[in-house]
Amino acid sequence: MKDHIKEIEAAIERYIPQEKVAEQQLVDAVRYSLNLKGKRVRPSLTLAFAELCGGSVDAAMPFACAVEMVHTYSLIHDDLPCMDDDDFRRGQPANHKVFGEDIALLAGDALQSMAYAAMLSDEAVAAVGGARAARAARILAEKSGLLGMVGGQVIDLSMEHQTVGIELVRLMEEKKTANLIEAACMMGCVVAGAEEEKIAAAERYAHAIGLAFQIVDDILDVTSTAEELGKPIGSDVDNEKNTFMSLLGIERCRETVEWLTEEAIDALSVFDGDTKDLADFAVALANRKK
Amino acid sequence: MKDHIKEIEAAIERYIPQEKVAEQQLVDAVRYSLNLKGKRVRPSLTLAFAELCGGSVDAAMPFACAVEMVHTYSLIHDDLPCMDDDDFRRGQPANHKVFGEDIALLAGDALQSMAYAAMLSDEAVAAVGGARAARAARILAEKSGLLGMVGGQVIDLSMEHQTVGIELVRLMEEKKTANLIEAACMMGCVVAGAEEEKIAAAERYAHAIGLAFQIVDDILDVTSTAEELGKPIGSDVDNEKNTFMSLLGIERCRETVEWLTEEAIDALSVFDGDTKDLADFAVALANRKK
Repeated sequence: MKDHIKEIEAAIERYIPQEKVAEQQLVDAVRYSLNLKGKRVRPSLTLAFAELCGGSVDAAMPFACAVEMVHTYSLIHDDLPCMDDDDFRRGQPANHKVFGEDIALLAGDALQSMAYAAMLSDEAVAAVGGARAARAARILAEKSGLLGMVGGQVIDLSMEHQTVGIELVRLMEEKKTANLIEAACMMGCVVAGAEEEKIAAAERYAHAIGLAFQIVDDILDVTSTAEELGKPIGSDVDNEKNTFMSLLGIERCRETVEWLTEEAIDALSVFDGDTKDLADFAVALANRKK
Repeated sequence: MKDHIKEIEAAIERYIPQEKVAEQQLVDAVRYSLNLKGKRVRPSLTLAFAELCGGSVDAAMPFACAVEMVHTYSLIHDDLPCMDDDDFRRGQPANHKVFGEDIALLAGDALQSMAYAAMLSDEAVAAVGGARAARAARILAEKSGLLGMVGGQVIDLSMEHQTVGIELVRLMEEKKTANLIEAACMMGCVVAGAEEEKIAAAERYAHAIGLAFQIVDDILDVTSTAEELGKPIGSDVDNEKNTFMSLLGIERCRETVEWLTEEAIDALSVFDGDTKDLADFAVALANRKK
């Protein structure tokens, strides 16, 4: 899974204008956030599923970069004062703390359009065909949009300072966290020309690890130390947030993570190739300590 | 040009979820701004060029709706307090005044993804083919993105409170205003399968009317009355903005509009069909009083 991180980062850089332009501040802001060292989980998953379905890393790369661009835009907008008002992201000053709120807003907007320009470039379309490129890009648009990731953010906002049921928390996290991971995995299959059964299995795998990831996040916010986690703990309880932990308690959370991890591994059974890395990744996510 | 406004508005409405959803507030915010009665210039141009190139209105409609969605997202984000901080848009309260800044930000984000979901839907792709759909969507992504419309916004911000040359004002307006109109016109040709020469001509027409539109805007801000214009006048001078008027003066501005209108009409000469409506539109833009 980590094999392609350097290639992904080099490919992303190639989508950023290298020559000096009049809107250089915007280019710098876009580069700043794309360069924050993340784990590149989503693009790595796109490439892993493309390879698993017999596709090439090169052909899948624009789609991998696109999902990272969409993820990055969502982080920049999330950190803005009118949203979570976070001053730091991945240990570095948030985009708006460096470039100002106006440029940060526009950098997020530009990143979203960059994602589609990347997926629909002549090169990307030539490699996978117009129909597959269009379908993959549509999946990203739907999973990240109105009734997907952005919708999840709005459900999260609507839950503040009131008690809600576990179904709504689950729906919120499915949209806010799992949907973009689903897009990442599905796009890998789609651009490789995989059968519908495999695209659906990639979605099922991603849905399970996406939810498991979030539940582990909620558990660690209660059980970890700030030192171990590398960020403040207890913020969910302090903010009286509705989380899997607050609604299910630690035992049921741990059971659910275990069950979701089995679900993710089970989903991989329809693929012919070597799924060990993807299975190991699901287990590692479940057992992570930070 | 005005023939299709009702159809466009009905088509846009069909992209908005009709059933009640958990993120209803977001859906309401998206609908609110899409429903503000604008002139629907951009989608009308997409349909006009599609028809001129022998394409069908139905096949071009998703692309027409998409350009209006991108335009609408840009207006919502423009009005936010960290940008122009405008409380009103088209005589109605700005999106963030009705729904709050957080929802307005997310409504803009969702509208951008909706545009790509519309252009790349199974139906849209079936009607024009994957290659054309992908190319049209890429044109929109590039013209509205980092080195296009969003880039133009950043150049505009960078010019505040300093004197700049006419070249930079022109570049800013080409990006901020003309680029999206170029996308609208070019997409109409692309989805109708027009030759490269016609796509380039549509871009030239759009570039000319886009710049002319902006110069007329600058002129009216000085020469009109608030009553006639339906919005406050003199704001450019008050804000010491660099505009075509402040840098060229009224005579050269009027000459330039005249020249650009001729340029737009000249660009239409490569098309075989009836270009009278598009020529009339260029003239009407140049002569508008509000």
